[in-house]
Amino acid sequence: MSTRPSGTSDALPAEFGFIGRIFRPLAGEGALDLRDDAAVLTPPAGREMVMAVDAMVEGVHFLPDDPADTVGRKLLRCNLSDLAAMDATPLGYLLTVARPRHVAEPWFTAFADGLRADQGTYGLGLLGGDTTSTTGPLVLSLTIVGHVAPGCALRRTTARAGDGLWVTGTIGDGALGLLALRGQVPDPDHALATRYRLPCPRLGLGLHGIASAAMDVSDGLVQDAGHLARESGVGVVIEVDRVPLSDAARAAGPQWRETCLTGGDDYELLLAVPPEHEQALLARGRHHGVRMTRIGRFIDPAGSAGVQLRDAHGAEVKVAHTGWSHL
Amino acid sequence: MSTRPSGTSDALPAEFGFIGRIFRPLAGEGALDLRDDAAVLTPPAGREMVMAVDAMVEGVHFLPDDPADTVGRKLLRCNLSDLAAMDATPLGYLLTVARPRHVAEPWFTAFADGLRADQGTYGLGLLGGDTTSTTGPLVLSLTIVGHVAPGCALRRTTARAGDGLWVTGTIGDGALGLLALRGQVPDPDHALATRYRLPCPRLGLGLHGIASAAMDVSDGLVQDAGHLARESGVGVVIEVDRVPLSDAARAAGPQWRETCLTGGDDYELLLAVPPEHEQALLARGRHHGVRMTRIGRFIDPAGSAGVQLRDAHGAEVKVAHTGWSHL
Repeated sequence: MSTRPSGTSDALPAEFGFIGRIFRPLAGEGALDLRDDAAVLTPPAGREMVMAVDAMVEGVHFLPDDPADTVGRKLLRCNLSDLAAMDATPLGYLLTVARPRHVAEPWFTAFADGLRADQGTYGLGLLGGDTTSTTGPLVLSLTIVGHVAPGCALRRTTARAGDGLWVTGTIGDGALGLLALRGQVPDPDHALATRYRLPCPRLGLGLHGIASAAMDVSDGLVQDAGHLARESGVGVVIEVDRVPLSDAARAAGPQWRETCLTGGDDYELLLAVPPEHEQALLARGRHHGVRMTRIGRFIDPAGSAGVQLRDAHGAEVKVAHTGWSHL
Repeated sequence: MSTRPSGTSDALPAEFGFIGRIFRPLAGEGALDLRDDAAVLTPPAGREMVMAVDAMVEGVHFLPDDPADTVGRKLLRCNLSDLAAMDATPLGYLLTVARPRHVAEPWFTAFADGLRADQGTYGLGLLGGDTTSTTGPLVLSLTIVGHVAPGCALRRTTARAGDGLWVTGTIGDGALGLLALRGQVPDPDHALATRYRLPCPRLGLGLHGIASAAMDVSDGLVQDAGHLARESGVGVVIEVDRVPLSDAARAAGPQWRETCLTGGDDYELLLAVPPEHEQALLARGRHHGVRMTRIGRFIDPAGSAGVQLRDAHGAEVKVAHTGWSHL
C-alpha cells in the first residue's frame, strides 16, 4: 500500500463508491453485502467444496474491443467449466480487478451486467472481491466455489486403457471465433465469434459413475487429451475424422481442421468412458440436449505413450503445434 | 485465449514446467497436486467457511526492488489478516500470477520460498492457481480460505455505542516503513521497513464473545475506524494520544504522528469491546503476547456521526487526509 493522500477527512475513498455501484448489486448469500473483511459460507451439509481460479488479461485473453458484458461472463464461464469437469455444482465466486485508468466506469457497468445475467443462469452469487489500480492492462482474477458429493469429484488421473475418449458438443468454434473476429475466417451468422466470447460450461450432466475421468478442453483438444492420458499414465488415440465440428466450423473449410484440433477456448468436456457406460452417457446427452461423441480411445502406454492422431484409415496425422501456452 | 503456436507436438507448454518447479512444492491437502481442474476440500465438520481475496500490483502495492520472498508473504499475510478480523482459522489459498517478461524465474523461486515459510508458520497450503502472461506490471491475486464456528465470525456491523475502541499492537509502522524505504524517515534497525514488508496477522486470539465487532486496519486507522462506525450505525471518537506507537515510530519524531494515524499497512485489529469484556480482552492479550490498547469509544451517532479525533484535553484534532484509496 502507499500513503498518498486520498481526499478530505470526510470523503470516502473512490473505490467504495465504485464497489457500491458496480459490485454490491451482485453480492450473493454469504457475501455480507461486500461490507466485511471476508465472506462467510455454510457448505451444503455433507458435501465437499470444490475451488478453482483463473485470470484473464486484456490483450492476452480478451480483446480490448470485446463487449464488456461478454468479458465478465467468459471469465465466469471458464471457471464454471472447471467445476463442470469435476461434476460439481456452483455456489459463488470471488473477483479481483486491477483497473487501469483507460477503462472507465461504463465499461464496468456493462461488465457487471454480464455477470448478473450469468449469475441468474448458473445459480450463484458474488462472495467477495478486491479492486485496485494498475499501470498496465486490465487484469481480472476469478475464484469459483462449488460443491460435490464426497468422493464423487471427477479427476484427470483415473482414465484407463480401454476407455473410450468422448467429447461434449463441438470442437474448434472458439479458436475459429477468434480468427473470425480478426477477419481471417468467414462467420456470416457470428456463430463462431459468439462461441469465442461466450463458452457454454457443461454443468449438471451428472457424469459421476459414468465417466472414469474428465477435464475441460481449454488449451486445445490435442494438448488437453495428452494431459488426460499423461496424468492417468495411459496413451490416447484421437480419430481426427470423428471430432465433431459445428456447421459454422465446417463451412469455414477443411484448411481450418488443424486449428479446430489444436486451438483453445472450447470449454467442452473431455471424458474417459468405459464401453459398458456408453449407453448411460448417451442417455445423459439426450436428456440434457448435449451432443456426446466418441473421438478415440485410451490405450496401454507400453504400446505408445502420449497422443496419437489417426485418420479414418488408421494413418498417422501430424500437427505443427498442439495448443495454447500461457507463458 | 489465443491460437498462437506454442511449440512442437510433443513438448509441454512452458507454464507446465514453471508451475511444476515453482508452485507444485507448495500444494496442500485438497490441491490434487495442482494437476486437476480444481481443488477438492472437505470443510472441517460443523464449521462455516470464510473466504477473502486481495490483489497486489507491482509498483502500486510493492516496490519492484522489494525482496521477492517478502512480496508473497505480504500478500498471504494481508489475506490472513482478513481471516484474523473474523476470528477464523486458515485452511488454504489459491493464487493467480499475471507475469511480465521482465520478472524471471529466480524471482518466483524466492517468491515461493517466502510462501513456503509462511505456510509452515500459519498452517495452510496452496490449493490452486493460474499463471498467465501480461504486458503490464506483475499482478498477484490471492484468495484465502478459512473456517469458523457457526455464527461466530466477528463482523464490522455490530459495534455499539458505549463499546471501547481497541487496537492490537502498534499503529503506523507500516506506513513509516514505506517512507523509510524511500529514505524519508530514519530507520536504523530496519524495524519500520520490516513491518511494511512483513505484517503480522493477529490470528488465533479467540475474540468471539469478547469483541462485539472487528476489522483489520489496512487503509489507515482513521479511515478504518470510520468504516467500523459507519457500518455499525454509530459514531467513534479516537483519542489520538492513546494510539500506541512502536519505539521506532516514536523515534521518527512527532512530525510523523499524522502519518501513523492515517497511513495504511498496519494489519492490526480494530475492535469494539464492551466495558464488561475489557478484562477478558486484556487477558487474551497477555496470553498471546499481543499489546491491547483502548484508543477511544463508540458513541451515539445522534451526538456526532463519523470519526472524531481528540487530544488529551478533549480538543478536536484535524488531519489533512484520512487514508489510502485503491483507485
